[in-house]
Amino acid sequence: MNKVDLVVVSDHLYTMTGEGVGYIEDGAMAIDRGRIVAVGRRDEISKEYEGEKALQLKKKAVFPGLIDAHMHTGFGIMRGLAQDTGNWMMYGLQPFDNVLTENERNAGSKLGIIEAVKAGTTTLGDYETNMEFVAGFIHRLGARGNLTHMIREAEKRVYEPGELYLFNRDLGERGLLRNLELYDKWHNKDNGRIKVLFGPQGPDFVGRELLERIYDLAEERDTLVHMHTQQGDRETYQVQKRYGKRPIEWLKEEGFLGERLVAVHLTDARDDEAKVVARSGAGMILCPGSIGIIDGIVPPSVAFQEAGGNVALGSDQAPGNNCHNIINEMKLATLFNKIKYTDPEVMPAWRALRMATIEGARAIGLGDVVGSLEAGKRADFIAIDLEKPSMSPVYSYPMRNMVPNLVYSARGDEVCLSAVEGEIIYRDGKFMNVDEDEIIGEVGVYPDSIGKRASGEFFSINGTNAVFMKEGKL
Amino acid sequence: MNKVDLVVVSDHLYTMTGEGVGYIEDGAMAIDRGRIVAVGRRDEISKEYEGEKALQLKKKAVFPGLIDAHMHTGFGIMRGLAQDTGNWMMYGLQPFDNVLTENERNAGSKLGIIEAVKAGTTTLGDYETNMEFVAGFIHRLGARGNLTHMIREAEKRVYEPGELYLFNRDLGERGLLRNLELYDKWHNKDNGRIKVLFGPQGPDFVGRELLERIYDLAEERDTLVHMHTQQGDRETYQVQKRYGKRPIEWLKEEGFLGERLVAVHLTDARDDEAKVVARSGAGMILCPGSIGIIDGIVPPSVAFQEAGGNVALGSDQAPGNNCHNIINEMKLATLFNKIKYTDPEVMPAWRALRMATIEGARAIGLGDVVGSLEAGKRADFIAIDLEKPSMSPVYSYPMRNMVPNLVYSARGDEVCLSAVEGEIIYRDGKFMNVDEDEIIGEVGVYPDSIGKRASGEFFSINGTNAVFMKEGKL
Repeated sequence: MNKVDLVVVSDHLYTMTGEGVGYIEDGAMAIDRGRIVAVGRRDEISKEYEGEKALQLKKKAVFPGLIDAHMHTGFGIMRGLAQDTGNWMMYGLQPFDNVLTENERNAGSKLGIIEAVKAGTTTLGDYETNMEFVAGFIHRLGARGNLTHMIREAEKRVYEPGELYLFNRDLGERGLLRNLELYDKWHNKDNGRIKVLFGPQGPDFVGRELLERIYDLAEERDTLVHMHTQQGDRETYQVQKRYGKRPIEWLKEEGFLGERLVAVHLTDARDDEAKVVARSGAGMILCPGSIGIIDGIVPPSVAFQEAGGNVALGSDQAPGNNCHNIINEMKLATLFNKIKYTDPEVMPAWRALRMATIEGARAIGLGDVVGSLEAGKRADFIAIDLEKPSMSPVYSYPMRNMVPNLVYSARGDEVCLSAVEGEIIYRDGKFMNVDEDEIIGEVGVYPDSIGKRASGEFFSINGTNAVFMKEGKL
Repeated sequence: MNKVDLVVVSDHLYTMTGEGVGYIEDGAMAIDRGRIVAVGRRDEISKEYEGEKALQLKKKAVFPGLIDAHMHTGFGIMRGLAQDTGNWMMYGLQPFDNVLTENERNAGSKLGIIEAVKAGTTTLGDYETNMEFVAGFIHRLGARGNLTHMIREAEKRVYEPGELYLFNRDLGERGLLRNLELYDKWHNKDNGRIKVLFGPQGPDFVGRELLERIYDLAEERDTLVHMHTQQGDRETYQVQKRYGKRPIEWLKEEGFLGERLVAVHLTDARDDEAKVVARSGAGMILCPGSIGIIDGIVPPSVAFQEAGGNVALGSDQAPGNNCHNIINEMKLATLFNKIKYTDPEVMPAWRALRMATIEGARAIGLGDVVGSLEAGKRADFIAIDLEKPSMSPVYSYPMRNMVPNLVYSARGDEVCLSAVEGEIIYRDGKFMNVDEDEIIGEVGVYPDSIGKRASGEFFSINGTNAVFMKEGKL
C-alpha cells in the first residue's frame, strides 16, 4: 500500500485524457505533494493507495480545474460601464479607465479573480500592469496564475481615428523592465503555481525592435509571448500604415509567429490568416463574450482548430463582457459558432470543455502541467454539484448528459469545490484563504469617487451610455 | 395615513414604466391585496402609506418579476439529452420523448419551474399536454402561470423528411377538449394568477378547419392563441405542400394573424414576413438559446420590433437549450443580435430587460397585469443581491451599471427574493411553498428507467450523441 497525501473519490470523473472527455465512473485520484500520482476506478486506486486525507465527492462530477486564459481583472472595478456601444474603448472605457488609481485596479483584480474561481476557474491568465499585486493575491488565494505584464510603446491610451500611434521608447523599456522583474520574482514560484509570460500589447502598440527583444528574452527564459493579435480593424489599419502589410502577414515575415506565441482574439483575422497562425504552432485565445459584446464578431477559432491549432478560452474584462465566468465562455463559444455557421454540430459541448481544460492548457504552454487529470500532472480540479436544478437529472445510459449540462445549463454556482495542487481553495461558497465579503465591501467603496472623476469626460464624449442615462434607459 | 398590506423599500427600484427602465432611487411600493397601490420615492410613499408588513431591501435592486413566455417544462426530465445535433427532433429528442410517462413529464415540469423561479421568472408561459398538473403545481408554488394546452392533429410524432403529415381529426378534437377543460377549470383562478391560452401546435400540425374553431373559441373566451409560427423549414415545407404558400402568407390570407395571436419562434421567417406579423398586432416570442442550439439561427425579432411589434423571451425546453434561466435568455438575445448584425448597439441591455418585463407582458396579453411596477398592476417583483461579485461594484453616477450587469454578468443566483401578488414565494435560496430537495430527489429517480426504455431507439438511430458516447466524448 502506497501512502499519499490525499485520495479523491467521485461518482463521475472527467479526466479529459485521450481525444474526448476521458470519463471514469466511480473514479478516484491519488494525490501526493500536489501532483496526481494515479487516476482510475475507485476499486483499483483504493487497493494501491492510502490517503492521509480522503475527499468523498458523492453526487458530484469532478473535472480538471478550468482555465481562463486571458483576463484583465483590474478592469473589474469598471464592471458594466462599457457595453452596447460602438468604439468601445473611446465611448465606453476611456472616461473611467483614465482616472483609475492603482488601489482601484487592485480592488478590481481581487473582485474579478474571486468571481472567476467561484465559477470553476483555477488557472487565471491575467494580463495588465498591476501583476505584482495580482501575483501576491493569487499566491495568497492558492490559485494558479499565468501572468503577463502588459508592455506598450504607444504613448497615448486613445488616439483619433486614422492617427498613427507615436511610439515612446522609454515607455516600452519601462514596461519590459517591469515584465522582467515580475518574471524574476514570480516565475515558477509557489512550486510552479505561478508562471510569468511576456506581454507586448499588440503589433500595433509595440515596434519591431522591441518586439524582437521581447521574443529573444522569452526564448532565453523559456516562457511565452502573450499578445493581442489582429484584434481589430484599428490594429490592422495601424500595421498596414506602418509596415504595408496586414498584422499576421507582417508577424509571419518578421518571424514572430511560432510556438512561442499565444495569440489573443484574432478578431479581424480571416480564416486563412487564422490557419497561418495555427500552422506556425502558436496557440490562440478566444474571448467569445467580450468580442461578442464589443464588436459583434465571432473570431475564427474553428478555422484555427481545423488547421491543427489549440484554442483556449478567456473572459477578457468586466467592462465589456461583463463577467469572469468561464462556464459562460464555454457556452458562448459553442453557441456563437453554431450561429456563425448556421450549424448546430460545428462546436459540440465536449469541444468547448476541452478548450477550457486540456486544449486550453496546451494553447498557453501548460499542457504538461494542468488541463487533464492524469499521473504526473498537478492536482487542480473542481467538483460540480449534480443536485442543482441546472444539472438535474443525471443520465449515464444510453448517454451521459453532464458535459452538455455543464456547458449549456450551468450558471456557475454548481461549482462546489475547487482545489489547486491538491489543496482545497474554495468549498461550498467559501474561500479558504481570502474573505469574499471583505473584498466585496472594499470594492463598493470606490465607485462614488471614480464616478465623480470620470463624469466630465463621460458627459463631454456623450457616448451611447451617456445618452441612455439621459433617456432613462439605465 | 392609508393602511396597506405591505410596503416594500429598496435602494434601487426599476419600475420599467415609460420608454426606458423607470428607475427610482431609494424607492418604495405600497401593496394591498396583491396589487400595487402606489410607487415612488421612499419619503413620499412613507408619508402616505403604512404597511401591516414592511420589506426592507437594502443593497438590492428591485425589478418586476421576469416573464418566461414560452416553455415546455415537462421536457425538463430530458435535460441535456438533445443538443449538438442536426435534426434535433429525430436525432435528439425522439428516443427519449417517445418513452416518457405522465409522471416523468410532471417531475420534469416541477424541475423546470423551480429552476426558472430561482433565476427570477415569476410568470411561466408553459405549453404542453400536462398543463392540468402544471396548473396545480404553479397554484401551490404561488407563481403566475400563462398556460397553454398543446393541440395537434398530426398523428405521428415524427415523420420522414418530405412526408406530408396525416391529420387525425379525433386527435385534434381531444386536444381541443382538454384545452377547453383546462380553460374552464383554471382561467382567471387564484385571483387571476393563472390564465389559459389556446395552443394549436403550428400551422403545419393543425388543419385549417380546426384552427378556425380554435380562433373562434379564443375570441368567445377572450383569450389568446399561442402558436409556433414559421418555426422552421419543416413547417414551411408542410404548409407550402398543403396550401401552396409560406406559413405567414397563408396565416395572413386566412385571417389568422392579428392581436389574438402570440407567434412563437419565427425561425424561418424573413424580415419582411416578421414585419407582416408585427403589423397585424400579434405578439412574438423569441427563444434565443433554444433556436441557437437547435438550429444555429437568430430569429428576426429586431425586424419585428422595428415594425412596432412586442417581443417576449422564452427558454423553450431543457433538452435543447438546456436551461430555464430567463437572465440567460436576455443575455443571448442581445449577444446573438449583436453578432447577427455585427453591431454592438443593435440590442442594448435595457431592451432585453424590457423584453423580459413590460414588452414581454404586452406580447402575451398581460400588459395590464404585470411587467412593470405601477399602481393598479399585480405586485410581482424580484430583488437582485448587489453584493454578489457578478453585480459588483454598483455605480449610480455618471451612469448606472445595474441593468447591464443583470443582463450580461448575472448568473441567476443573484435573485434573492421573488414575490407574486405581493406574496413572497422564494427567498435566500428557499421556496416558501414547495420543497426543492424533494423535487430534485424525485427527478433523480427516473433516468435509469427512461434510459433503458430509450436505448433501443437511441442506438438504432445512431445520431450524433450516440456516436459521441461511443467515441468517449460525453
